[in-house]
Amino acid sequence: MNLSIIVFVIGWVVMMEGVFFLPPALVGLLYGEMQDAVIYLILGLLCIAAGYLLRRRKPRSMTFYAREGFVAVALAWIVLSLIGCVPFVVSGDIPSFTNALFEVISGFTTTGSSILTDVEALSHSNLFWRSFTHWIGGMGVLVFILIVLPLSGASTMNLMRAESPGPSVGKLVPKVRQTASLLYTIYIVLTATEVVLLLLGGMPLFDSLCHAFGTAGTGGFGIKADSIAGYSVYLQNVITVFMLLFGVNFSFYYYILIRRVSDALHMEEVRWYLAIYLAVVALITLNLTAAGNSFLTSLQQVAFQVSSVMTTTGFATTDFNLWPNFSRALMVCIMFIGACAGSTGGGMKVSRMILYAKQIRLELLQQIHPRSIKTVKTDGKAVDKNVLRSANIFLMTYALIFVVSFLLICLDGFDLTTNFTAVAATLNNIGPGLNVVGPTGNFAEFSLLSKYVFMFDMLAGRLEIIPMLVLFHPETWKK
Amino acid sequence: MNLSIIVFVIGWVVMMEGVFFLPPALVGLLYGEMQDAVIYLILGLLCIAAGYLLRRRKPRSMTFYAREGFVAVALAWIVLSLIGCVPFVVSGDIPSFTNALFEVISGFTTTGSSILTDVEALSHSNLFWRSFTHWIGGMGVLVFILIVLPLSGASTMNLMRAESPGPSVGKLVPKVRQTASLLYTIYIVLTATEVVLLLLGGMPLFDSLCHAFGTAGTGGFGIKADSIAGYSVYLQNVITVFMLLFGVNFSFYYYILIRRVSDALHMEEVRWYLAIYLAVVALITLNLTAAGNSFLTSLQQVAFQVSSVMTTTGFATTDFNLWPNFSRALMVCIMFIGACAGSTGGGMKVSRMILYAKQIRLELLQQIHPRSIKTVKTDGKAVDKNVLRSANIFLMTYALIFVVSFLLICLDGFDLTTNFTAVAATLNNIGPGLNVVGPTGNFAEFSLLSKYVFMFDMLAGRLEIIPMLVLFHPETWKK
Repeated sequence: MNLSIIVFVIGWVVMMEGVFFLPPALVGLLYGEMQDAVIYLILGLLCIAAGYLLRRRKPRSMTFYAREGFVAVALAWIVLSLIGCVPFVVSGDIPSFTNALFEVISGFTTTGSSILTDVEALSHSNLFWRSFTHWIGGMGVLVFILIVLPLSGASTMNLMRAESPGPSVGKLVPKVRQTASLLYTIYIVLTATEVVLLLLGGMPLFDSLCHAFGTAGTGGFGIKADSIAGYSVYLQNVITVFMLLFGVNFSFYYYILIRRVSDALHMEEVRWYLAIYLAVVALITLNLTAAGNSFLTSLQQVAFQVSSVMTTTGFATTDFNLWPNFSRALMVCIMFIGACAGSTGGGMKVSRMILYAKQIRLELLQQIHPRSIKTVKTDGKAVDKNVLRSANIFLMTYALIFVVSFLLICLDGFDLTTNFTAVAATLNNIGPGLNVVGPTGNFAEFSLLSKYVFMFDMLAGRLEIIPMLVLFHPETWKK
Repeated sequence: MNLSIIVFVIGWVVMMEGVFFLPPALVGLLYGEMQDAVIYLILGLLCIAAGYLLRRRKPRSMTFYAREGFVAVALAWIVLSLIGCVPFVVSGDIPSFTNALFEVISGFTTTGSSILTDVEALSHSNLFWRSFTHWIGGMGVLVFILIVLPLSGASTMNLMRAESPGPSVGKLVPKVRQTASLLYTIYIVLTATEVVLLLLGGMPLFDSLCHAFGTAGTGGFGIKADSIAGYSVYLQNVITVFMLLFGVNFSFYYYILIRRVSDALHMEEVRWYLAIYLAVVALITLNLTAAGNSFLTSLQQVAFQVSSVMTTTGFATTDFNLWPNFSRALMVCIMFIGACAGSTGGGMKVSRMILYAKQIRLELLQQIHPRSIKTVKTDGKAVDKNVLRSANIFLMTYALIFVVSFLLICLDGFDLTTNFTAVAATLNNIGPGLNVVGPTGNFAEFSLLSKYVFMFDMLAGRLEIIPMLVLFHPETWKK
């Protein structure tokens, strides 16, 4: 294990986090929250100094193997969270360390599950930081570092694969460095566009920034007790659309940028993503209308809620926990599907679902015509066997983590629907589940053990499980 | 498609069912239920005649390809059920055709889910037939036919594979015919032993036979309103042990018969099966004792209930729906694991779980040491790639059927735990779930649509999904 390069990367991460602490310091200054401003400023400077020192010693070799990639990414996210929760504790807004850590992991992993019972009691700087963590975590910190770090091609791929969501990280352009900076450009432009549209609808600048961060990272932390419900229908619809946009595979935008619009429009994953979204919206709207609700109001609310849950954002304009059971069950199902690979969204990803469905279809055809030899294809190309294998193993690993987490959470004695959806909401990085953890509920009442299980699940979900398991595998640390 | 051989096999199945109708006719005679005795006798004779006619025309070829195997098995089970429900309807004990069909499919598939609200109101002959269907379905009807049918080796394997549970049907002895008759011998001897032990404990002969049938097929239909709760602790313990024994891979008994005891004791699946059983019993007993229950009473009851659910039998001596949520959640988990492959039990099978766990382990090791090449092994032998592939595709297909069924059931408006466990209980061929379908509940209140979904799930679960999907796949029926 090349530990020196891991320390080097962690140094970069700490330094970056120091820089990230400066905007909330500025917010504190603007809103006259001097204590918080000072906390963020001092922490920021400390991190920049510490990070600078850590990364000063050049590593023996600049090569990352898969193992180092996983360990670096998993450790980086843990360090990021351990430091990130400090302002919550020190400012006194979230005095419990466990709760503060839960909240910031929920932020960085773009989950949006909260232990807060009164979100409006937080200072502006803390609210800003809370939403800002979504934006930082959405695209990934290490992806950003790749832009500045002088690593070999294979090494950067190993890092990027470990942090990026989805079954296969395609290289958009031959150099990973360029891919990373391209991704960040798209990310920033889309976020800025949303901010402008929210401002045009009359949302204050502070609110617009926080909500745009939450949308862009598909995070879901709100700054009001009723999430997005208090804003105008126009603002809600803007957020509906942007949640959907951030759940799209970013290759789609890349194709459009380089004017290969036809390639973009033929991306199977994006087509299925939209098809599933529209189908679920239609079914739930029908279900609500049949239960006596107005069609148009239902449609507008369902479009928001389904967009929020399917992209694993987690904002809410209404309490879907009160919907009929068929609609609630559909919401639970789309929690697992999630967004597109290569987006900021979580869940198991639409592209994996496509791979599973195609394998089932192929297996049936082969049972019916045993001599036919067929291969799984997506976007017209045969899928590599290793991609299939790791998608399949992902499913097993995912199920295993799910079951173990579920059992541990059940020790707390909440009802089974709460426990099941709480695990689904954290492992898929969504935020709200049903019953106790529904859109109007929170995770405050869970035991210490359960909270750490949820934190593990949020990190495992964001990093797609393998990095977290490699980090804790004894074999990784053998000489 | 070689339709003539499918008709030929169906002929055999109908004839066999005619013979199976005779024992309940005899029961009716003995208990003075003349109407029922006549119904079973006439039906029996009609089936024997019809079956004889159907199988009189020799098929063009005696060869079964995989496709014909699947279609024959799926159709055979549907025909078996359609005929098998007639006595319930005609005798008036279950006047609704849908309910009667549900009950008999639940019987043949060894599920044990019931639509009856008062089981004790049934006549003796109907109760006997209901339990007898478990015994018939446990080992499989076509496996029995293989003993008498003059088919080629590959053909019989195709038939046997389609009907037998588990990821791979090993040939115990080179000739499938001999394997089939050996399996039936073990089955009959074990059942007879249980009957004797139940009689020794003072259980009446009729009750002993019915319960032995339910145990042997891991079915779970009881003949009393309180299932097994009213019998002595000795009788309950006998059933606990025999449920466990029928959940063991029958190869285990074969090895013991030919004095390869060491091979038997080293079967990984059987070891894990017992390890999981003991671990779950220990955890739930601890959970109940911590909640203030007596240790010994809890242990005895938990041993029974866990044996019943893990082997997918479904008998009950206490209402595990009233246990603490951690214990209930554990029960739900073992519903999915199920029994050993090559046993009469259902569920996903312990051997598949082993394959999944080993693949996860291997994947992690390969991520940590990318250059190491390792293969999945069980019982010391490398697992064939096709076995792995079909186990993996089984998981996806299983999940797909589960989700679709769950959503359809949710249209009925019951709570999510009821719906989730109802699908789990039928797809895994267990019987009871939680809440409305808990050990003291039943499936009577579900809509017509839900009942047909459950019937599909029970058949899909018993035949391990693929045959049912092949039967309904349009490609199967193309010229």
